[in-house]
Amino acid sequence: MNTVREIAAAAKSCSYELAALPENIRNAALSRIAETLDAHKARIFAANEIDCAEAETAGIAAPVLKRLRFGEQKLADVISGIRGLISLRDPIGKPLSRRQLDTELVLEQVTCPIGVIGVIFESRPDALVQIASLCIKSGNCALLKGGSEAAHTNKALFDLISEAGVSAGMPEGFIALITTRAEISEMLKCHESIDLIIPRGSNDFVRYIMDHSDIPVMGHSDGICHIYVDASADITKAVPLICDSKVQYAAACNAVETVLVHEDAAEKLLPPLGSALREAGVTIRGTKRVAKIIADVEPATDEDFTTEYLDFIVSIKTVADIDEAIAHINRFGSHHTDCIITEDAAAAERFMSRVDSAGVYRNCSTRFADGYRYGLGAEVGISTGKLHARGPVGLDGLQTYKYRLSGSGQIVADYAEGRKSFHFKELL
Amino acid sequence: MNTVREIAAAAKSCSYELAALPENIRNAALSRIAETLDAHKARIFAANEIDCAEAETAGIAAPVLKRLRFGEQKLADVISGIRGLISLRDPIGKPLSRRQLDTELVLEQVTCPIGVIGVIFESRPDALVQIASLCIKSGNCALLKGGSEAAHTNKALFDLISEAGVSAGMPEGFIALITTRAEISEMLKCHESIDLIIPRGSNDFVRYIMDHSDIPVMGHSDGICHIYVDASADITKAVPLICDSKVQYAAACNAVETVLVHEDAAEKLLPPLGSALREAGVTIRGTKRVAKIIADVEPATDEDFTTEYLDFIVSIKTVADIDEAIAHINRFGSHHTDCIITEDAAAAERFMSRVDSAGVYRNCSTRFADGYRYGLGAEVGISTGKLHARGPVGLDGLQTYKYRLSGSGQIVADYAEGRKSFHFKELL
Repeated sequence: MNTVREIAAAAKSCSYELAALPENIRNAALSRIAETLDAHKARIFAANEIDCAEAETAGIAAPVLKRLRFGEQKLADVISGIRGLISLRDPIGKPLSRRQLDTELVLEQVTCPIGVIGVIFESRPDALVQIASLCIKSGNCALLKGGSEAAHTNKALFDLISEAGVSAGMPEGFIALITTRAEISEMLKCHESIDLIIPRGSNDFVRYIMDHSDIPVMGHSDGICHIYVDASADITKAVPLICDSKVQYAAACNAVETVLVHEDAAEKLLPPLGSALREAGVTIRGTKRVAKIIADVEPATDEDFTTEYLDFIVSIKTVADIDEAIAHINRFGSHHTDCIITEDAAAAERFMSRVDSAGVYRNCSTRFADGYRYGLGAEVGISTGKLHARGPVGLDGLQTYKYRLSGSGQIVADYAEGRKSFHFKELL
Repeated sequence: MNTVREIAAAAKSCSYELAALPENIRNAALSRIAETLDAHKARIFAANEIDCAEAETAGIAAPVLKRLRFGEQKLADVISGIRGLISLRDPIGKPLSRRQLDTELVLEQVTCPIGVIGVIFESRPDALVQIASLCIKSGNCALLKGGSEAAHTNKALFDLISEAGVSAGMPEGFIALITTRAEISEMLKCHESIDLIIPRGSNDFVRYIMDHSDIPVMGHSDGICHIYVDASADITKAVPLICDSKVQYAAACNAVETVLVHEDAAEKLLPPLGSALREAGVTIRGTKRVAKIIADVEPATDEDFTTEYLDFIVSIKTVADIDEAIAHINRFGSHHTDCIITEDAAAAERFMSRVDSAGVYRNCSTRFADGYRYGLGAEVGISTGKLHARGPVGLDGLQTYKYRLSGSGQIVADYAEGRKSFHFKELL
């Protein structure tokens, strides 16, 4: 058994080869993997039976057990996801700029894979397949650590993906599996081999990873999303939008936690909104002004405004104008996804240009913040960081770029000493 | 006097306003700043006289004193730099993708400023003007900490830039100056207000900053650049290219430190290269094979291959083939800038796609790695990180993006429950 450091170093060596691998081999590997998973589904389901039986014996919670189960439907979904990825255009080698600096001296900025990505994910075995396929398509080596409850299923999936990939031409070691929790802390120290860590899981877990590694971490620890209802909002749109944003999946990071209401819209909006939310089983916490308009409102404090409920609870506050709403969101929000409901184009523009979030929405549910719904094919996660990738992260977020400069013997002294000069001509 | 934390928080508030400021105001501010610096040059030069006199009294080293001096020529250079920036296209609001998800539901990915940038720079006062203008053009708030030797000059430049900017319509506090070294450690703790730190200075200093902040740091601590001379290299190009890469400015991060030579090229290349380098005053450290072909070669060890000499020293090693050269560079290099000299297009492609560096060059000097020479107008620094910006960082590297989603009341439940479906139509 190799140590995590050795596995990571091997992945690093492999990553240079993988970065140069042509698209047809990466797509052929994805295709072979889809076929192999289907052909060996009995082996996967049998492994999953062991995990589920052990989880039941251990008295694991019902929602975790549900995520852990990997049957016909989930297999069909991941296979369909792989086929979708094959059809997406190659993210590698995309020219971002091309400039002639001088005669026979051309600078090209092209996308290339990041290198080695360490992904730590939760109990869902389908996550392993999704992450592995995104890494293959984007030319990155994947170092995977899945939930221990899914150990047998993950091992079966990993072995099949690894063998199928190599048989289709992927370099040996293009993917590696880390199996023990203790190895995570080893992984966090491998900054010379791992280029990026993507942790998925609870907020506390993600924050722990961010605090314990020198390796760049992509992810989000909080999802405190807002909807601001402007004075000019269409109330008939606002009520179903807010309800959808809260109850369509309350435990998601893109569910709304705080609704800000322009004072002029409060009298019209709050009574129907209050009824609709309560009918859906949502508890309302509101400021005094809100409690004056609708009944059964628990008092909301500043602590409410910094809390991701992940539950059927919403806080509501009135604001004097759009700027108070923007200031509240920039101060209390987590820069994830925030929406304005308005029929006023100038207000929408003011909100969308001044709210500093990965997603700024107008008249639609915050629940749209998702790689599949954005048309990215799939996502490795959602980033609330501002550098590199922001929001749902798909293939493009797994690319960096390099500058390629091709000359015919040019030296800098000629330019520094005035014998030659640059002419900078954009070629793209 | 406000604390650094207060200054950073004020900059954060200001950054939301600045992000929405139209291009004409940002350009008008740059124009007013250029005029103001010229109109008040006596005040700047007088302040600089004080700094230089104090530096001389303190017995400061001659090269530092040279960088500290700010006279007519340097003023003309920074003013010309500002005018160049005005003419560059606006980096803000550039659409990166636009996709119709469904009828009346359009997703747009657009560039926007990062927010608050903390820049810690060396003794050159011209750096203050360059960084401030890049931040203005790119819509970012700048928190500046310059070298203490330049305190008077920096204060004069800062006051003029700040007043001229505000009078042209920039929000109060768009730029702030931090004056004491003790404040740097305060600055490194302001992760809730500062989005990015860019340290410029010695390798040790940059590494110190990287190790002591939770804020993302953009920069490079090492510049170990390579030139690989392929079997098919044109020796008449190779010799001047290698000399330029070493001696045109030996203390620069983009100077070459190690030359790798294909065994088949060694006999032809090394004698003329050795003579040319020695004539330029360069000490050669070589492997045994190199020492067999040319005289006066000090032995090179693995330590040489991980050392940034920043001096008139170069290490030379022969390699059996291109893959040994690529493996050496990926292992010992700093992923900054590496060049192949070859007349073989397939070898060039193999090198450029497999070497994992911000700049991969063919047949030109490594000294071209520079924001001005790349046509970026100017640079805030050079990044060897792989996430976000890589290589010389200009206006585009000071942008992030946000997703803007505009709808007409769409809710996710309709899509999740099959009543509607996405059609993903690319609009860009």
